[in-house]
Amino acid sequence: MTFDIIRAGRAILHVTDLEKSRAFYDALGFVETASDDSHIFFRGLEEHNHHSLLLKKADEPAVEVISYKVRSDQDLEELATMFEKQGSEIKWMEAGSQEAVGRSLRVQDVSGLPLEFYAEMEPAERMIQKYHHHKGAKVQRIDHFNCMIPDVEKAYNYYLDTFGFACSEYTIGEKDHIWAAWLHRKPSVHDVAFMNGYGPRLHHIGFWLKDPMNIIDGCDSLASLGYGPAIERGPGRHGLSNALFLYLRDPDGHRIELYNGDYLTSDPDFKPVRWDLDDPMRQTFWGHQAPDCWFEEASDVLDVHTSKKISGIEPKLKKQKPTFVT
Amino acid sequence: MTFDIIRAGRAILHVTDLEKSRAFYDALGFVETASDDSHIFFRGLEEHNHHSLLLKKADEPAVEVISYKVRSDQDLEELATMFEKQGSEIKWMEAGSQEAVGRSLRVQDVSGLPLEFYAEMEPAERMIQKYHHHKGAKVQRIDHFNCMIPDVEKAYNYYLDTFGFACSEYTIGEKDHIWAAWLHRKPSVHDVAFMNGYGPRLHHIGFWLKDPMNIIDGCDSLASLGYGPAIERGPGRHGLSNALFLYLRDPDGHRIELYNGDYLTSDPDFKPVRWDLDDPMRQTFWGHQAPDCWFEEASDVLDVHTSKKISGIEPKLKKQKPTFVT
Amino acid sequence: MTFDIIRAGRAILHVTDLEKSRAFYDALGFVETASDDSHIFFRGLEEHNHHSLLLKKADEPAVEVISYKVRSDQDLEELATMFEKQGSEIKWMEAGSQEAVGRSLRVQDVSGLPLEFYAEMEPAERMIQKYHHHKGAKVQRIDHFNCMIPDVEKAYNYYLDTFGFACSEYTIGEKDHIWAAWLHRKPSVHDVAFMNGYGPRLHHIGFWLKDPMNIIDGCDSLASLGYGPAIERGPGRHGLSNALFLYLRDPDGHRIELYNGDYLTSDPDFKPVRWDLDDPMRQTFWGHQAPDCWFEEASDVLDVHTSKKISGIEPKLKKQKPTFVT
Amino acid sequence: MTFDIIRAGRAILHVTDLEKSRAFYDALGFVETASDDSHIFFRGLEEHNHHSLLLKKADEPAVEVISYKVRSDQDLEELATMFEKQGSEIKWMEAGSQEAVGRSLRVQDVSGLPLEFYAEMEPAERMIQKYHHHKGAKVQRIDHFNCMIPDVEKAYNYYLDTFGFACSEYTIGEKDHIWAAWLHRKPSVHDVAFMNGYGPRLHHIGFWLKDPMNIIDGCDSLASLGYGPAIERGPGRHGLSNALFLYLRDPDGHRIELYNGDYLTSDPDFKPVRWDLDDPMRQTFWGHQAPDCWFEEASDVLDVHTSKKISGIEPKLKKQKPTFVT
Repeated sequence: MTFDIIRAGRAILHVTDLEKSRAFYDALGFVETASDDSHIFFRGLEEHNHHSLLLKKADEPAVEVISYKVRSDQDLEELATMFEKQGSEIKWMEAGSQEAVGRSLRVQDVSGLPLEFYAEMEPAERMIQKYHHHKGAKVQRIDHFNCMIPDVEKAYNYYLDTFGFACSEYTIGEKDHIWAAWLHRKPSVHDVAFMNGYGPRLHHIGFWLKDPMNIIDGCDSLASLGYGPAIERGPGRHGLSNALFLYLRDPDGHRIELYNGDYLTSDPDFKPVRWDLDDPMRQTFWGHQAPDCWFEEASDVLDVHTSKKISGIEPKLKKQKPTFVT
Repeated sequence: MTFDIIRAGRAILHVTDLEKSRAFYDALGFVETASDDSHIFFRGLEEHNHHSLLLKKADEPAVEVISYKVRSDQDLEELATMFEKQGSEIKWMEAGSQEAVGRSLRVQDVSGLPLEFYAEMEPAERMIQKYHHHKGAKVQRIDHFNCMIPDVEKAYNYYLDTFGFACSEYTIGEKDHIWAAWLHRKPSVHDVAFMNGYGPRLHHIGFWLKDPMNIIDGCDSLASLGYGPAIERGPGRHGLSNALFLYLRDPDGHRIELYNGDYLTSDPDFKPVRWDLDDPMRQTFWGHQAPDCWFEEASDVLDVHTSKKISGIEPKLKKQKPTFVT
Repeated sequence: MTFDIIRAGRAILHVTDLEKSRAFYDALGFVETASDDSHIFFRGLEEHNHHSLLLKKADEPAVEVISYKVRSDQDLEELATMFEKQGSEIKWMEAGSQEAVGRSLRVQDVSGLPLEFYAEMEPAERMIQKYHHHKGAKVQRIDHFNCMIPDVEKAYNYYLDTFGFACSEYTIGEKDHIWAAWLHRKPSVHDVAFMNGYGPRLHHIGFWLKDPMNIIDGCDSLASLGYGPAIERGPGRHGLSNALFLYLRDPDGHRIELYNGDYLTSDPDFKPVRWDLDDPMRQTFWGHQAPDCWFEEASDVLDVHTSKKISGIEPKLKKQKPTFVT
Repeated sequence: MTFDIIRAGRAILHVTDLEKSRAFYDALGFVETASDDSHIFFRGLEEHNHHSLLLKKADEPAVEVISYKVRSDQDLEELATMFEKQGSEIKWMEAGSQEAVGRSLRVQDVSGLPLEFYAEMEPAERMIQKYHHHKGAKVQRIDHFNCMIPDVEKAYNYYLDTFGFACSEYTIGEKDHIWAAWLHRKPSVHDVAFMNGYGPRLHHIGFWLKDPMNIIDGCDSLASLGYGPAIERGPGRHGLSNALFLYLRDPDGHRIELYNGDYLTSDPDFKPVRWDLDDPMRQTFWGHQAPDCWFEEASDVLDVHTSKKISGIEPKLKKQKPTFVT
């Protein structure tokens, strides 16, 4: 590859009520960097750049883009050239057209997901040692995107061969096909995961916490603010990825994962971990079933050119969730 | 009162396979004080006496007794006199008839629960600072019994008026009747709780943990030993009692609560906390519903005289679990 | 005894700058119930009464009283009668003379410490489940007083025989004399501890935390607010009492212990734990030496009648701190 | 660069008593992969390769090498070529000459430290989800080496320019010279740190823990096994790196850091954090002074060719530890 994708960088979510969303993400412990009548920019406590979550006021909830940070502006050029060779229509967002972000490149990926690549973002104060401002679940940083798509193997191959991702863990479904895969650029379990399902849709954005107690404190703090019903699943431990997790639904139904755990995947000889879809310890190491809504509901994504919703299609593998055999 | 009930002291559970039970309670972090072909005596890490959980080999799972420690042998005499005055048939277990326990007094309580009172138990080494032996969920000590009974108000009145318990929290059901109550002798939230339901049955025995992380470490450790399916509910926070909880089912289906949280209830002017049955934060502060089995299943209890199972009766209040309105 | 001392209830500290003190105790996570130009009333998160720490503006730092809650007003009468029989001069503080507290009885104890007994205090909202207001070290409740006095055995005997305290742990110094003792009314390790030293002085007030992470979060939060120099000792584990501790000096030098750990001491047959003064695991289980200031400095106490400082005297046992032999 | 150094990989320590060392590292929670009469191979719980710590029986304690994993065997060739061009004498350790490791390249670095580079190591079972085997401080993986060297700026420049490390944080001493620097290849705070001091010596090896509670549990567990005196410093928080730390001395005096915290340093535009040597929050965010031995004592290192101890020299910057001004 002639470009270097660094990591999952930010997501842009369309939300219908900025104040409701502000209250929710503030309760989680996000830091607000800036806002105006139609935008709120949030960052985590250790992030040294302007934002990792951008909320935009809109009529309908949707995902505008999921964005990856690349090494330099030159990498954007290389990506653009490659996409054009492949026949993908790209869209340049020129510097100045978006607050706090340099020139960016947008494209619909192999699954129809709206991607964005950028090299530069304005810095912001790191709050990592301003401990007296830490609150809620003390969200540290963006970690990954999880996407439901109809053809996981196609995306898997593309992200490994073309984007240079590596696979940390994967799940096998019918006839030995890949049902889900966890792929990374930074040496953690993932920057992006793909799950077999109706899509393309964004299943959740994962934010990393420094400590298991942040999950418990986060639950307590959310509940005492009245956000108990926003807790969809957890706390629990995923067998897959070994993450201690909590899944929340924001006021528009966008799903947020609070995530602690992970491990180092720096080594080229690391062997991806294989799981069977119906292994009861895969989804939840502690043995709980996820609620159906967790497998069925996800956020719609937009076309980067038309800003219309992308129509979903049915997944190639029929099984849309594990069968628990106990 | 002329007697002083100190605290919930021990429970005797009948189990059908001692080895299976040993493996389970050992995984939880209990310390085995002694055992023979038909008994295992377990204690928690901070306990200075012989056991708080006695497992007996039997053909069927059941609860033989739940036992309270009283101040002195004289208190046993006073209790015996009182029960006889009230027309309750008592049973003395003479010193030497039970391992490690002095003379004890058994009786069926106002709800038909098999109670035992004892003043003396052999000491055992406290493991509280033998940290390198702590494992699993690091169970510290017995905390309370939770019982399903058909007439909570009757038991509530009896335990307050006759046994000298105080109420820390309670739940109101139909027509302002008490649906559940948390009662204590030691100044914690409870030594015993009563819930409206088919009974008398023992819903669970609560063991106290020193630290929220013990719940998470306990789940991980249990799951990696294959006990994931034994986790019935949690981790979660009860609104009622403010406990961080985990409910487990032992190999015979007896329910164990691992419990962290609690607060001091020493003051005579402490006002009991009132909850409405359908308050969604009562059962689970974080908003999850308990599974139906948690409301329906419980352990049968024995007659202290015949050792036969006590027949249950339907509860006075019709509602057997909360209606969640979200 | 014809009276019932419930527990350590509150302390009244004289401080020289209310605003500096407010900032410090607020950083620790105390809740301010009320204040005026010369008083601030603080309570912990689980406390259901008005305050457990009262700061009074004064020219010099000092301890006005350490106060115990008793069961009822009748207990105050019984105590008064007993003190008068013993020849101790008592002082009644009539209801209305102190904010939020009913009638109280003050007396200099056997060591010259200024004691107060009260039965009634106005209630206050419990913040235990207002988790979004928890911050700093999340102080839960007052736990104990620790006092340096010249004759520990005399106080030990008096508190056991006359006040009805029980001993949980003690330290033996020269010629088998008691060098320090931990005494309780509520069934925890202590409501009061006595250490051999120049006095009578108040060594520290202990506040209980629910969780070891509150110590770490408290350190981080205090340090990021600039209170790093206020941390005198810890975090560490006491062998004695098994407490995870942090010692802080408030802006006037009063010492506060943040305390997590403890165990249940409800049983009349609990055997007090004996330690030798020079056992290296006694003071700090993890092997660190306490700084000299911890053994030497303490708060002066006042005469309940004259409000003048009580003159200290040298301790009976010569050794004023352990000798570490490694 | 034409080579890719992945991360700090392993250290080889000479120890004088294998059994004493085994007991110590076992107590910390290391997993023993293999051993014979003169070697013990230890790995952390999440490590998928054979070992990260190799103890060798020897007459005197010393550091044989600190080793970095590179991407492939080809990278070893490239490194060898470069060292030879620079005039550094290299030493090849052929495959088979060391247990579990492929061919490796050894060289004395710019400061005289004994480095080793390897691409291949035999795999080993990851214990990350064998939670019931986790114990002690639950050591997860090797994180970094910290070295005392006489000329930090020289090493800093060499590691950045020649090895391709990036700087996350640094400390400024006299006349704006770099007194210490934290350098990384994997996107964490560091794979190696250099401190101004008599050397070259190895100050400590840092191992990463997943959770702050592992530090507390580790202290308790070590102390109850009698290793209290092995705890040299901490627990505490470094301002620099934001790590929660515990420093231990193994039976030969080699220093081990248990380390939790860290943050992601993946971004090329991350600005290194600058600290002044005398900033009291740099060394210990919570305000404690490190003991003198922490600044003065370190492990001797060997010549990769002669296996003799490298003679140390005095550091260029005179100040060998901070002056605390409070």
